[in-house]
Amino acid sequence: METDNNSLVRHFNIKRVSSSLAAHDVDTVAAEEPLAIRVIHWFKDVRRTEDLALTMRTPGHDRELVAGLLLSEGIIRGSADLSALRPLGSEPSNEILAELSKGVDFDAWRLARNGFVSSSCGVCGKRSREALAATPSWVSNDSLPIDASLIEKLPDLLRDHQRGFAQTGGLHAAALLTREGVVEAVFEDIGRHNALDKVLGWSVLNHRIPLHSGILFLSSRSSFELIQKAAMAGAPVLATVGGPSSLAIETARERGITLIGFVREARFNVYSGEGRLNL
Amino acid sequence: METDNNSLVRHFNIKRVSSSLAAHDVDTVAAEEPLAIRVIHWFKDVRRTEDLALTMRTPGHDRELVAGLLLSEGIIRGSADLSALRPLGSEPSNEILAELSKGVDFDAWRLARNGFVSSSCGVCGKRSREALAATPSWVSNDSLPIDASLIEKLPDLLRDHQRGFAQTGGLHAAALLTREGVVEAVFEDIGRHNALDKVLGWSVLNHRIPLHSGILFLSSRSSFELIQKAAMAGAPVLATVGGPSSLAIETARERGITLIGFVREARFNVYSGEGRLNL
Repeated sequence: METDNNSLVRHFNIKRVSSSLAAHDVDTVAAEEPLAIRVIHWFKDVRRTEDLALTMRTPGHDRELVAGLLLSEGIIRGSADLSALRPLGSEPSNEILAELSKGVDFDAWRLARNGFVSSSCGVCGKRSREALAATPSWVSNDSLPIDASLIEKLPDLLRDHQRGFAQTGGLHAAALLTREGVVEAVFEDIGRHNALDKVLGWSVLNHRIPLHSGILFLSSRSSFELIQKAAMAGAPVLATVGGPSSLAIETARERGITLIGFVREARFNVYSGEGRLNL
Repeated sequence: METDNNSLVRHFNIKRVSSSLAAHDVDTVAAEEPLAIRVIHWFKDVRRTEDLALTMRTPGHDRELVAGLLLSEGIIRGSADLSALRPLGSEPSNEILAELSKGVDFDAWRLARNGFVSSSCGVCGKRSREALAATPSWVSNDSLPIDASLIEKLPDLLRDHQRGFAQTGGLHAAALLTREGVVEAVFEDIGRHNALDKVLGWSVLNHRIPLHSGILFLSSRSSFELIQKAAMAGAPVLATVGGPSSLAIETARERGITLIGFVREARFNVYSGEGRLNL
């Protein structure tokens, strides 16, 4: 598993105060930089380029981030909808270009969403909740059961991969695991939405969408927007270290997603879809 | 201090699993609902109404949230720019109308931002960082020093007001305190950006902008967007329980804001503007 530590953190001279004794020191913090996302799309035989979004993110795995964002937002449904994805200018770059395949109707998406995406924004666009409800259900009903003992091990499994968090205390992590507990992908980012988008983008680029098996695990809380992202990827199970919001629970129940929260060693809460768990 | 507990939390039937023993139970979680924000603005003598944003938030204190968002986004500079602010339809309402005063140039703002706001979005709009840099500096240079002993007390002072967090573990809090440690306003929300916007909106509605004295304290980490909000309110000091991102530090240094992180009993880190602290 690749973890690009250099891009995740930065070092700053600070003043550290302890019991009112102050000393200058160097602190390591989570890196945050803007990423400009440009899209090339086709209208009939005309190729158009335009700015899609400026998002704040932790640099590293920008291709995964953008592929995941395009999936979460409903612009693409899988790797076939993406014909190119590359940074612009010299590396490290804060600008990326995504070229959509012919036949991807970007204008229809824009009309439906009438919006804009941001660092932690999955519902930028007035009609997004309605749009989600209208999409065909990707979440499979016939997933095999998952052992409760695996859920209890998730925090330990994730911790081994949270190098940026260990250095800064300021990064979220998202992971995709098999039901046997094998960690297939882990990414860290200052934004929990970005961390999940990186995992979903990895899944797009590795032709794994829809994610009919496997477990998404996040170090954060869960909100409506994270459930929406899981639904767009067809993921049957989302577990988090923190708790869910009311709308996260309601949306998970509507979409048939197993939602688990407050995952600790030897305990967790099941908010939706307990049928997928061997308890 | 008013805290609207009923709107902050919701109750759900769940399955609680502990050491692989499962039991049905009721859980209390943070409330999350969409809020549609409509704006009335004037172009010469023509009154126009339009949708500004759909944001996910914890219901309660929506007027404060919207006033704060309008300030943070640079649409208004204070209470004089707002001629009305009221929920639409029957209460509890998920729709709110903000009427801007004549002379507020909404079209110029839209042109500059070209964007849309979301739950946790302070940089939706391509030119926002440039726009921030171009705004006149509101942050006063001559703030009186603050005792380090007050900073160390902030978590205790905030905890007394975090009723929603105590019930759910899923809400962030933001507070405005005097340099004597008096808590003037506290609000909770699932989103840290929203919690800060509610405090800034309270300040707008109470004619307290620019916030030339006082301390903003957040239960969360700090990112670029939160520093941007503090700068738009003219707040000289922002302290947080969590750590800052690299861009939060860089922006606080550029804007002359005192940025403090990892505030605990008897210790904290000063990332910017230590001149305002009596250490």
